[in-house]
This record gives sequence, structure tokens and C-alpha cells, in this order.
Amino acid sequence: MRFVDLINKKVSGQNLTSEEIRFWIEGYVNGSIPDYQVSALLMAIVFRSMDRREILDLTMNMAKSGDMMDLSAIDGVTADKHSTGGVGDKTTLVVGPMAAACGAHLAKMSGRGLGFTGGTIDKLESIDGFHVNLDHKAFIRQVNEIGIAVVGQSGNLVPADKKLYALRDVTGTVSSIPLIASSIMSKKLASGSQVIVLDVKYGSGAFMKTVDQARELADTMIRIGRGAGRKVRAVISSMEEPLGHAIGNALEVREACQALMGNGPDDLMQLCLTLGSLILIECGICSDPDEARERLMESVKSGRALDKLVQMVKAQGGRPEQIYDPSLLPCADHVTSILSPVSGFVHSEDALALGNLAMQLGAGRAKKDDAIMKETGIVLCVKPGDYIEAGSPLAAAHHRLPLPDGWLEECVRAFDIREQREDPHPLIADIL
Amino acid sequence: MRFVDLINKKVSGQNLTSEEIRFWIEGYVNGSIPDYQVSALLMAIVFRSMDRREILDLTMNMAKSGDMMDLSAIDGVTADKHSTGGVGDKTTLVVGPMAAACGAHLAKMSGRGLGFTGGTIDKLESIDGFHVNLDHKAFIRQVNEIGIAVVGQSGNLVPADKKLYALRDVTGTVSSIPLIASSIMSKKLASGSQVIVLDVKYGSGAFMKTVDQARELADTMIRIGRGAGRKVRAVISSMEEPLGHAIGNALEVREACQALMGNGPDDLMQLCLTLGSLILIECGICSDPDEARERLMESVKSGRALDKLVQMVKAQGGRPEQIYDPSLLPCADHVTSILSPVSGFVHSEDALALGNLAMQLGAGRAKKDDAIMKETGIVLCVKPGDYIEAGSPLAAAHHRLPLPDGWLEECVRAFDIREQREDPHPLIADIL
Repeated sequence: MRFVDLINKKVSGQNLTSEEIRFWIEGYVNGSIPDYQVSALLMAIVFRSMDRREILDLTMNMAKSGDMMDLSAIDGVTADKHSTGGVGDKTTLVVGPMAAACGAHLAKMSGRGLGFTGGTIDKLESIDGFHVNLDHKAFIRQVNEIGIAVVGQSGNLVPADKKLYALRDVTGTVSSIPLIASSIMSKKLASGSQVIVLDVKYGSGAFMKTVDQARELADTMIRIGRGAGRKVRAVISSMEEPLGHAIGNALEVREACQALMGNGPDDLMQLCLTLGSLILIECGICSDPDEARERLMESVKSGRALDKLVQMVKAQGGRPEQIYDPSLLPCADHVTSILSPVSGFVHSEDALALGNLAMQLGAGRAKKDDAIMKETGIVLCVKPGDYIEAGSPLAAAHHRLPLPDGWLEECVRAFDIREQREDPHPLIADIL
Repeated sequence: MRFVDLINKKVSGQNLTSEEIRFWIEGYVNGSIPDYQVSALLMAIVFRSMDRREILDLTMNMAKSGDMMDLSAIDGVTADKHSTGGVGDKTTLVVGPMAAACGAHLAKMSGRGLGFTGGTIDKLESIDGFHVNLDHKAFIRQVNEIGIAVVGQSGNLVPADKKLYALRDVTGTVSSIPLIASSIMSKKLASGSQVIVLDVKYGSGAFMKTVDQARELADTMIRIGRGAGRKVRAVISSMEEPLGHAIGNALEVREACQALMGNGPDDLMQLCLTLGSLILIECGICSDPDEARERLMESVKSGRALDKLVQMVKAQGGRPEQIYDPSLLPCADHVTSILSPVSGFVHSEDALALGNLAMQLGAGRAKKDDAIMKETGIVLCVKPGDYIEAGSPLAAAHHRLPLPDGWLEECVRAFDIREQREDPHPLIADIL
């Protein structure tokens, strides 16, 4: 088999056979197929796409390129939750403990973030002493004992994705639904959970700009997961605005703790209850959504959800005091208010702009090796639909260094204030 | 400037600026931009194409990536002739001496062939002692004295094309008109001739399968050449059937000698007269096509065209006896007739199939380092429109080794023999 023939097939619009896809992934991982041929095939896929069978073959071959996690030693059904990423998205920190408090087993491997803010792991590392390096046995034991563990990706999980992702990043081949779906799902399949609940974002602050694109991505991932024998559900949710109020690592942990204490922002709670219901239903813990939401809300009211987070933090070396009293989390030296220049109703808050502004304060990484300043970020004072008086704060910047030139002006421009109030668009566009 | 941004621009359908194209070619040649990014851009160009300005920028930057030949020491206008390649295409060996005999100055750099049969250089090397390694001074002197020289490409001519072509070959990015046109024209521009006459082939044995594709390629190359201040003309000619009767290196030199003696096949002579007229007119030697054809035919009748070939062969170390008496050229040990299984009229002869069959006999290279067997190939006994009796020879195979299994059957299948005669389609589809 010559790899150039596979490229030519894809260029001419033909599908690759299962054997050809195996040849590609095996050859790329073992180094016999060079980057320059793979990047050409990836670009042909950007334009020609792949059909369902090809996407499943690609994902399965990627998943099998390294270790496949064996979670069979965990009692009962294991669940994983994945978000395609957005600004202020701290749902894992809220829905994870809630679902675990209701009896679910969440065995979650998570990545670090590149972009607006850190990933779940970066956020958790705002807690003093918290670490994500559990060996396999400790990971299994923790999930069995507490019901939740969040760890970093193990060394040899999906090496094909590591190589392909790094290549896609520098060759303009990131924006292809088959490639995005196979990248995400290969990691989910290799991570071993039987239930996978996906939060697929759309809008300004998400990779998918429209609901239709997000639905197509979700649909593709669901087909992959079901094709591989997993239970998969997906929520299509808006990332036109940041989720909740806090953007930035320690700030988001604080908001998550407050949510588990019953003081969470409406949008965050709504999304967590929706995602949590899907987890409980697919794990066979509840049979209908109303019952599931009831139990999830009860886990918050009773304090058991917060206790779960505390147990997890303790088990992974963190200081539980910072969960019970989030004011003990790292705090910024400087907090600067961003004041509204006009009075009116908040029409929209540009998630992309706010994410980039938070990154400029040190809350996210522009490059892979950038260090994160845990305490920095933005806290929104208003949400779409709210009325604001001129001179009142739109948001607060939490920063270590002086604000960059033009930062405040740019932050003000991220808010669209209008005379007439319009109902905010719904947070959840669809549940698949 | 980040190269990935250029790729993303092209993926989204935007044009690259002149500055961006310069950055690309300079960075690729100096090694700062890696193959895997360039192959991704090339694939994006396969799908998104380039506009006229981009193609001219690309070609000019490629041409300038190495030495630009200075032909100013040649008296009068210099001309170059280029064929996009086909089966049995020995036109350079015929039209070159004819045009030189009429006063043109042909300063031709030529490549070796990859595929069906050798390139012009491989063909000329069938002549004992013939060499193509003239230094610049000797090259200029020979063109001034004899009016024609055919040499190999000098070391540092268009390094950007060498690198890009090698990459395109293994990344499925060969079939893009902007990339084909810039590859050919960058070499023509760097070779320095003021007049460039192109023979753009279409059909089974050509890279362009349809007249329309060939016309688009020709049109693109003409625009590039004129944009760079050169005089460019193009002939669109059929490669549905092989040109002339002979396919294979020494066999084609023999046919070219016979053509210069006045015994050339009709199709070959027709094409050579058309291409030769364009050369004479663009060089300012003749003012109208009829006069030009007259002079070209006269150069054959008078023997001056054959003398020109002899002078060139002598000047480049070859044995002139083999030109005056082509039976002295290398001969195959074995000649096997391919007999027609039926009686009827030859409807068509598949150039692609016959080219591949000749290559199997050793007349061409499947891989870059394959050795060519100069004496091998196929000589057609009939051409489209001819009547053939069952049992009469369709062609003769000239071979050194036993014929491969199934070779004869495959060769018979290359001929479409029908009961009714149909007029062969015209050789020349257009002159631009």
C-alpha cells in the first residue's frame, strides 16, 4: 500500500477502506508515514470530509494506538463528561460532585487548556496541594470509594491523537468535524467509561460558531460512541456568553464551590442539572429526567455534593478548607472595576472577546508552555437581560500585573448595552 | 508572519498577498518552513486554486529562487519549446533542427522523463557519445554557432520547483493547474528564452484528460509568461493516440531522423510545422504562418534541417553516422509482432495503455532511479482510420527481455478495431 494513493483517493472524493485507515494510523504512529504526507491527507479531509464508517474506523484506530484503560475493577457503570470547551466553563467541578453524590461513578481524565482559560486540571490545581497524578490502582480505588476522580492523561493514552493534534494545529486542519470528533472520541473510548455525556458548545466563545455545526459535531460523536458500544448523550449549549460569572482558574473554582453551596448562577446550574440528569439516567441510577433533577438538587441542598468535592480534593492532596471557604483560594493583588459608559439593558457579552481578555491577564495560555496565573481573570457583574446604570460595574478584572494598554476599552466593547430589553436566547439549544 | 495563518487564509478561500507568497517560497527554500506545512498549503490550493496574480507571484518567486540564466550573449531572439509530455512525443528532435535551419536560436534546457518513455535528454542519449552537460559558455557558443543546443538542467535552476515538485509527487497535490503551470513556467522563465512555445497535450496519454483542462492550463501559462514579459504561444494537441509510430528512446530518435529526411508520419509533421511556425513568427523570422510552414518544409527538403541535427549531435559528442543512418542506433535483440485478432478499421489506440506497455519493456522509468533500456519500445504499424486484416501486425514490440506475462493480450486490447470507419479526431484542437 502506498500512502500517496490514499491521499489521491481522498482528493478525488472516494472513501478510504478500513484497511487503509489502519495503515495510515499505524504507519503514522510508528513513524513510517511522514508528517508531510499526513498533513496533505488531513487537508484533503478538511475539504472532502469522511463518511460514518471512515470516522468510526479512524477513531477506533486512534483509540487503540496506545493503552486502553480498563475500568472493569470499578463497581457499577462508569461515566465520563466532556465539554468541547468554552469561556467560564466550570461544569465538571459542579456536576461531577453532584452526580457522584447521587451514586454515579465518574472516572475522568482531563487535559490542560490551551486558549482562554485553563482546562479542568488547571482549575483544580488552583487548590493548594491538589495533584492529578494518580496511578491506575489509586484512580480505580478513589472512584470506587468516593465516586469521582479527575486525573491527567496517562503517558501512552492515544499517541495517535497527540501526534495528529500537534500536526493539525500547525497545518490549518483543525476545523474539520470528522477530525475534531475522532480526536475527542478516541480519548473518550480509550479512557474506558461506558457512559459518555458530551457538552457541545456553539457561539462566539466556542469552536463551533453555529448551532447547526455543533449539532453535526455532537451527532458525529454520538454515532462514533454508539458504534463502539458506549452509551453517549449530548447537550448543545450556548457559548455566545461566558458560563456563569467567573472566568479564570481560582475564580471558577470559587464559583463552583458557591454553586455546590446552593448559590450558583442560573445558567451554570441549569446546564449542570441537564448534564447531571443525563449521567444519572444513562448510568441507570434514575429513570426519568424529573426524578434525576430532583435528586441532583437534593444533593446540593443536603450538602452531600459539596462533601463529594471535599472528599475528592482531600484524596488528591488538596486543602479542603479552601472548598468550605473559597475566600482562602488564591486572590489577585489587584481588582479593577470595568464601568458601563451608558445605562441600558445588557444585550450580549462577547465570550470570545472576554476569553481573550482573561487570557491577557494570565488566566490562559497563548502558547503550550506559558505559565498560568491562577488567581487572575474576570468576574462578570451582569448577565444578558440585566439593567445597568451608567457608571456601575460591568465586570471586575482580577490581575497581578498592570492592565495592558487598551485592555479596559476593549473589555467595555465586549458588552452590548441597548435601550430595549430583549429576552436572552436559551442556554440549551438541544439534547441529543 | 506565521505560515499557519497563510494556510488558514487559503482554506477559507482568501487569496495570499505577494508578500505572503514570497515568505512561503523563500522560507521553504531556506528550510525555515517545513514540508508538512507546505504540503497542507498545496492541498488547500488543489481545492481552492489561486487567482492570476497569485499564480504569477508564485511563479516569479520560484523562478528567482535559484540562478536565472542570462542568454543576452546570444545573437537575436532566443526561443524555447516545451511539451507537457505524451507518448511518442519526439517533436523537439524534429522541430528544433527545422526551426534552427530557418534561423531561430533554440536554447533548450530539458529534463529526464519519469513515466512512459524518457524525456528529450534520455532520447538524445540513445546516440552514442551524446552528452548534455555543457557549461554556460559552451551552451551560448553552440546556440550562436549552430542555432540549437539541448542541455540538462543546471545545478541551481529553480530549486523551489525541485523541492515543491518532489513534495507534490508524494502528497497527492500534482493535479492543480496553478501548481502545474507555475512549475513549468518557473523553469521556462529561469531558462531565459524570450519566446516560449508550449505544446499542451490532452487525452488518454496526457496529464490533462480533456481539451478544456488543457486549454485552461495553456491559458494560465500564457498569462504567466506574458506577465513576466515573455512572448508565449501554445498549441493544444491530442494525446488520445501516441504521436507518430515510434514509442521508446532510440526508436523515437530514428523516427525523428526519418522525419527530417522527409519521411515523417503525418501527425508528427503536422504538429512540428505548427509549433515551428509559431517559433519563427514569434522570433520575428517570418510574418505569416503560410510563409513559416513553407520555410520549415523547405528546410527538410533541402536537407538543412537534418544537417542541423547532425551539427548539434557532433557538437555534443555524439556519432553523426547514427543520424544519417538511423539503423546504426541501438537495436533490440527481439522484435515481436502484435497481430490483430479481427479485421476492421482502427478506431483508436490507447496512448496511456501503450505508454505503460512500452515502459514495461524498459522504455521508461517507473521510479526515478530505474535504468532505461534505450533500444526497447513499441512501433505502431497502423494509425486511427487505417484498415487492418485479421492476422496482420498492429504493432511491433522491441524488447531485450522476454515479454511479461499477459503483455501481448494487453497490447491487443489497446487497439479499438471497428467495422465502420470513422474519421480520426483532429490532432490540433486549438492554437492560442
